[in-house]
Amino acid sequence: MEKFIIIGERIHCISPEVRTAMETRNPEPVIRRGREQLDAGATYLDVNIGPAEKDGEELMKWAVTILQENLDNVPLALDTANKKAIAAGISVYNRSKGKPVVNSADAGERLSNLDVAAENDAIAIALCSKHGVPKDNDERMEYCQLMLEHAMELGMDPEDLWFDPLTLVIKGMQEKQVEFLEFLRLLRDMGLKSTAGLSNASNGMPKHVRPVVDSVLAAMAIECGLTSAILNPLEQRLTETIKTAAVIMNQTLYADSYLDI
Amino acid sequence: MEKFIIIGERIHCISPEVRTAMETRNPEPVIRRGREQLDAGATYLDVNIGPAEKDGEELMKWAVTILQENLDNVPLALDTANKKAIAAGISVYNRSKGKPVVNSADAGERLSNLDVAAENDAIAIALCSKHGVPKDNDERMEYCQLMLEHAMELGMDPEDLWFDPLTLVIKGMQEKQVEFLEFLRLLRDMGLKSTAGLSNASNGMPKHVRPVVDSVLAAMAIECGLTSAILNPLEQRLTETIKTAAVIMNQTLYADSYLDI
Repeated sequence: MEKFIIIGERIHCISPEVRTAMETRNPEPVIRRGREQLDAGATYLDVNIGPAEKDGEELMKWAVTILQENLDNVPLALDTANKKAIAAGISVYNRSKGKPVVNSADAGERLSNLDVAAENDAIAIALCSKHGVPKDNDERMEYCQLMLEHAMELGMDPEDLWFDPLTLVIKGMQEKQVEFLEFLRLLRDMGLKSTAGLSNASNGMPKHVRPVVDSVLAAMAIECGLTSAILNPLEQRLTETIKTAAVIMNQTLYADSYLDI
Repeated sequence: MEKFIIIGERIHCISPEVRTAMETRNPEPVIRRGREQLDAGATYLDVNIGPAEKDGEELMKWAVTILQENLDNVPLALDTANKKAIAAGISVYNRSKGKPVVNSADAGERLSNLDVAAENDAIAIALCSKHGVPKDNDERMEYCQLMLEHAMELGMDPEDLWFDPLTLVIKGMQEKQVEFLEFLRLLRDMGLKSTAGLSNASNGMPKHVRPVVDSVLAAMAIECGLTSAILNPLEQRLTETIKTAAVIMNQTLYADSYLDI
């Protein structure tokens, strides 16, 4: 069984520090946040530059280059609505540690991000949604099949689609969590890879509660077959949970020191 | 969906404090440990008096009486190899908060504990084992069916059997954990209730690691349908996990203060 992949979420232009660093092309905060996340257990780093309509191409190239040059060709997820910026980032991307990830396609307006992934031999995060929140797993599966078919027509390997069932917020959609977990099991049973923005579930909860909820949901989701997630690896309880889940699922060998490795 | 049942494990004669209290019939430590566990989230309390070959009947009656009189008729699991002691305990047991639990029957020498449960209209913990560790889920299911059939012949309601797949230690049987979880799912799909001594999985691990492992396994097991567990409710991370699992599985309504309730 392959090891669970943590995609570190902390290089995101919503953070004032990151936004300023991106605007002024100051590499230090971006590289530091990358290193911290890798040290904490991330495999991939998400690089979210926002819509980046003006200088997205140049900005994404800059971010890819400084991260890979300074962090041993760390594999990256390129996260923006600007398709040209994704292609530009991939044009300078070094694949030695893993293919780039296009974040993200969906079954609606963002379907063409699958084309971007196909043209660039990249992995695509494929959100099982079209107009907002899917109402049930039948709808999720319909979008999943639509994207799978489109990607295969483009010549993509199904392994290069990481399907995201769309994590729903517990405050408001508490009764939908079991279905989210069941969908992960459906994906696993179909042999498909998956990903999720797990911490969306705890949105709006008190600060001390969120790591508890995120961790329990992560344990359950991994048991249901989740193969990757975008999250904050500096949240210790969450990374402890993911390491432990790997032991229980027999993906990594137990050692007394496994939490510190 | 019914609420997950925590059976508190801390009234056990293996503890020197409890052993002395039982020997000298000193109620204070027993009642205190009972109250602490109820405050921390236990529903049932396990009362383990050991083999108790000499004075088991009188001892179990004493323990049942002091606990129920002082803790509002708390429901109890009567835990001993001495069948007469279990029957004696039940003879003074008040059922207003729940049936007594006989801990435990198995598919081998302890099969007749099902008869004790049937004769006394009690719940039985039914270990899916015969001679030690079951080698796979086929063997577990064979024992499960054997006990189910025997209990039904005795007129028991299948709901009154809480099947225990037998939790296996990770250090030594790491590759068996997924099968343990799958068996819980089989039990759920059959509409059967289940229980487990979850912390057995982390036996032999460093002290700071055990709560992490116990919690992750608990989250996964509840997602797979586990309906009760015998555990230490004073282990905060574990009870936080169980409360959170109840929210995600939509068994209790979320409130910002749910961890403190």
